[in-house]
Amino acid sequence: MKTPLIRRLCIVGVGLIGGSLAQALKRAGAVGEVIGTGRREETLGKALALGVIDHLEMDPAAAVAGADVVVIAVPLGAMSGVFDTLADHLPKDCVFTDVGSAKGCVVADAKRAFGRIPPTFVPGHPIAGTEKSGVEASFPELFQQRRVILTPLAETEADAHRLIRRMWNATGAEVVDMGVGHHDEVLAATSHLPHVLAYSLVDTLARMDDRAEIFRYAAGGFRDFTRIASSDPRMWRDICVANRAPLAESIEEYSRDLGSLAQAIKDGDGETIMEVFRRAKHARDNLYLD
Amino acid sequence: MKTPLIRRLCIVGVGLIGGSLAQALKRAGAVGEVIGTGRREETLGKALALGVIDHLEMDPAAAVAGADVVVIAVPLGAMSGVFDTLADHLPKDCVFTDVGSAKGCVVADAKRAFGRIPPTFVPGHPIAGTEKSGVEASFPELFQQRRVILTPLAETEADAHRLIRRMWNATGAEVVDMGVGHHDEVLAATSHLPHVLAYSLVDTLARMDDRAEIFRYAAGGFRDFTRIASSDPRMWRDICVANRAPLAESIEEYSRDLGSLAQAIKDGDGETIMEVFRRAKHARDNLYLD
Repeated sequence: MKTPLIRRLCIVGVGLIGGSLAQALKRAGAVGEVIGTGRREETLGKALALGVIDHLEMDPAAAVAGADVVVIAVPLGAMSGVFDTLADHLPKDCVFTDVGSAKGCVVADAKRAFGRIPPTFVPGHPIAGTEKSGVEASFPELFQQRRVILTPLAETEADAHRLIRRMWNATGAEVVDMGVGHHDEVLAATSHLPHVLAYSLVDTLARMDDRAEIFRYAAGGFRDFTRIASSDPRMWRDICVANRAPLAESIEEYSRDLGSLAQAIKDGDGETIMEVFRRAKHARDNLYLD
Repeated sequence: MKTPLIRRLCIVGVGLIGGSLAQALKRAGAVGEVIGTGRREETLGKALALGVIDHLEMDPAAAVAGADVVVIAVPLGAMSGVFDTLADHLPKDCVFTDVGSAKGCVVADAKRAFGRIPPTFVPGHPIAGTEKSGVEASFPELFQQRRVILTPLAETEADAHRLIRRMWNATGAEVVDMGVGHHDEVLAATSHLPHVLAYSLVDTLARMDDRAEIFRYAAGGFRDFTRIASSDPRMWRDICVANRAPLAESIEEYSRDLGSLAQAIKDGDGETIMEVFRRAKHARDNLYLD
């Protein structure tokens, strides 16, 4: 039998992303055994019962012992604590990566915990997910034809980078490299900002006096528009805090544009409104065919 | 053979809504013949070829002659001109209704054209549609289990009101009555505001320097969130202008809330962020089960 790409994989945090990664790698024959660890034994028990992981290990030292690769798939707010634990127990030469939606804060957390940028650390971010969360929602096809961004640093070993790239390729994803700062700006605009806008809209309506009636007349467009407001609040709070500077800038830029549009609406300035709507429809239609 | 509810129906503007209504009423056996009229002969020709209408009539006087019911399904900006034509040609006792997404402006337009609120006019608004438009996108099931709001006035004849209610019921819709002003406030919040936010977001991103890259990394959430930005710009410009006062107020309220949230994000105030996100997720999850 061929030796798999990763003999022993440890996943810290077996939720939607961690669970889907384990399933995808197993299906591809790219992994020997998968150890699941994390904060909540109950979740890990579910992952074990579902066959997503092969072993459950609550002791972090035992969990990472003998691992070729450790994938950290916890919310951003829990990342720092995981790095502290890893700094004490990670086997020499073990390559590790994360799946956090912001990269500047993760790199800073790692640097603090390890006292330097660990050369075997390859920061990563799979651009995949649904508004669902938890291992029950995980499935092996989640990353197929999706993009995974890696943000290796000057300190990152080429072999480590190559291994994590091959790991993601095995899931069917397309892997691209990007600078840490650029990643955080791009994701603030395309992902974090829309989530903030959707959460904020639902909350604004939910606090109106006639909210029951308002929600009763929400149509199909509203359903699609607000789907992302069903996402895990804790995960998104962590993202907002972790990526606060680029996100705040995106919100500011958006608010300025919305303010101009609001003024045009108030003035009944159909020409300006039409210009914005036309440009937006053109961009959206070029992006997707639905 | 039973006499249908409407013997001769004239539809002014045979697009997604007008076309779907014609198809639904035909399928339900609720209409004898359907006359299509409008500004563009080409569109009407398509409707005729698709069997959506039985006759095409470019002369408005001939189109409405002998009609029991006239349905005006044109963009809000074209409503006023249609009323002017109807005021000259509408047969006595002919009941008419519209499908405009804002009602205050439509009622004002009708009053101006007719010199009073016409007692056979029943303002209406089916809460249905997709981001697609045009008669090619029309289908008979569009209104099934959707809500149609009627906003009859003190002047509206009870028989006219009843006929339009029965017409919509025949399409499978649930019909509710509402005051004009209340309708415009509720729709500003649930429909017009989300469209403005989506158009504005896509436009903000489209005008960024690295827009090509930004759109490349947009994930599934972005696709759903921005689907409504593919809607017909002209139709939505008209809605924004027609319903500008309630809409501007909704945008203002939203912007205030977004500003507070932005401040919390800047401050890294996880507690406030979490409160908003939790409340929004709770409201959204109670609304839909997807």
